[in-house]
Amino acid sequence: MTLTLNDFKDAKERIKDHTIETPMIRNHSLEDILGTKVYVKLENLQVTNSFKMRGAMNKILSLSEEELNRGIICSSSGNHGQAISYAAKQLGIPAVVVTPHTTPEFKKSKIKEHGAEMVFCDVEERFEVTDKLAEERGMTIVPPFDDELIMAGQGTMALEILNTGVDLDYILVPTSGGGMLGGIATAIGESDSDIKVIGLEPAKLPRQSESLKAGKRVKVKSVSTIADALVVNQPGAVTFPYIQKYVEDVITVSDEKMIEAQKLLLEKGKILAEVSSCIGIGAILEGKFKPNKDEAVCFLISGGNLSLDQLDL
Amino acid sequence: MTLTLNDFKDAKERIKDHTIETPMIRNHSLEDILGTKVYVKLENLQVTNSFKMRGAMNKILSLSEEELNRGIICSSSGNHGQAISYAAKQLGIPAVVVTPHTTPEFKKSKIKEHGAEMVFCDVEERFEVTDKLAEERGMTIVPPFDDELIMAGQGTMALEILNTGVDLDYILVPTSGGGMLGGIATAIGESDSDIKVIGLEPAKLPRQSESLKAGKRVKVKSVSTIADALVVNQPGAVTFPYIQKYVEDVITVSDEKMIEAQKLLLEKGKILAEVSSCIGIGAILEGKFKPNKDEAVCFLISGGNLSLDQLDL
Repeated sequence: MTLTLNDFKDAKERIKDHTIETPMIRNHSLEDILGTKVYVKLENLQVTNSFKMRGAMNKILSLSEEELNRGIICSSSGNHGQAISYAAKQLGIPAVVVTPHTTPEFKKSKIKEHGAEMVFCDVEERFEVTDKLAEERGMTIVPPFDDELIMAGQGTMALEILNTGVDLDYILVPTSGGGMLGGIATAIGESDSDIKVIGLEPAKLPRQSESLKAGKRVKVKSVSTIADALVVNQPGAVTFPYIQKYVEDVITVSDEKMIEAQKLLLEKGKILAEVSSCIGIGAILEGKFKPNKDEAVCFLISGGNLSLDQLDL
Repeated sequence: MTLTLNDFKDAKERIKDHTIETPMIRNHSLEDILGTKVYVKLENLQVTNSFKMRGAMNKILSLSEEELNRGIICSSSGNHGQAISYAAKQLGIPAVVVTPHTTPEFKKSKIKEHGAEMVFCDVEERFEVTDKLAEERGMTIVPPFDDELIMAGQGTMALEILNTGVDLDYILVPTSGGGMLGGIATAIGESDSDIKVIGLEPAKLPRQSESLKAGKRVKVKSVSTIADALVVNQPGAVTFPYIQKYVEDVITVSDEKMIEAQKLLLEKGKILAEVSSCIGIGAILEGKFKPNKDEAVCFLISGGNLSLDQLDL
């Protein structure tokens, strides 16, 4: 555990020409229903329409020229692969994305659109296939979350949030392997802020909350959830200690309430986001998180990669 | 024509406890497609989810206590009625909204939800019914657009846009009777800004552009358009001179391109808005407005009152 505030500042400087500062806006239309002051950080408007671009770019721009020329590879269920594909195109380097067959067609087509070579496999063998190809071609693996440079990239969102000057009480962050949650919580924890960072994960895959309870990284059963961006079944070895140290709590949310939250964010809040990104709103709808009306909550809207026919209206 | 910058500043002060400063955000996700720098002013997140609250509140809060106690009345196809209903509830005064039978169910239900008494009639007789009821009950008519206090309220959006400090080249404003367009253009014109304000109207109802050509208020044939918030068939007597003086141009857009724009704003831009509010984006899609890539365009997203089943996906 070596991340300090400077790592996040360095990441911000490193990625600034390849990512955007996404808006954080107040959303009054949701306040009566959610019973608190509502802010949304619109990472669904990030380049490639998800936060993944931040961590991936920070990692890739830290590689040597020789490594860059040999190319990059990753395994991904969608948003990370899209970021890798897009980043490689921007930098003019080769890229391979190893993708489970089960990935939604929409996300597959976006990865392909940016030009990366795609290799399909079963979800269980994706890391093995990635390792083998990386070895054969001399490519560098860009991991989806379990890496301090990835975490530092994702943590740049926290710097932007702090920079708004808004007096927040909470930031609610969807979590899977813990790269975004760990990065944001560490950046907040290492700054002067007393904002509490809370993680949200699918009730069907409670790997972070179970691990926090056990005091060590627990592997939960891999089951299917509507939250297709939050499918990791064990916290990362690199991310978990940061989560233990800096995260206030991790709350689980049902698939049902995530879907309800997605619809609410769209219908009342006028914002379109992936169902996984609506999990924080789902936590309030489920009564699992109860801020009061004078508190200010920022919901991290982590991605917006969905086709309209995926909406369950 | 007596509106000056002070009228807009006074309006802003008058309505500040009853409306919000809506966000204006950059939307990079639309820039490749639209070929210009894209900003959106999110009036779909205003109280009652449309800009109508601004003008209505400015007018209502200028009434005497006696007038307030006797109550307010309007005829409205939707968003104005909703604003009146909500405003009356906020201020604890009686309100009647005269609504054409043809108003979408969703908008009817929102007017009703805020508590105003609703009177239904045919679209042609709505002003007659309103006048008669106002007379009978001693209520004050709050007009939808043709009034300087209404215009001053709508123009407060321009002050907020100027206040962002963003170096805009254009503001694109949907127009019907001209209250919003006239208000915004006048506020910009009376300030130090050299931003050009452009109006957009349905090709099926070209009342502003035909009137500008003719140099006088032309009445066009009332025909049905998908843009249910832009159905007036003649510019207002009060608004039109301001539009002649301060508006750069008024462009007409087909129903087809408005629908395409609504889908684009949602799918790529991640924002849900009424089809009428997407007319500025439609103008670019139709090739009627061609900003270059270094110019910055603010699209006034005037309302978001639609149910999801109204989306033509």
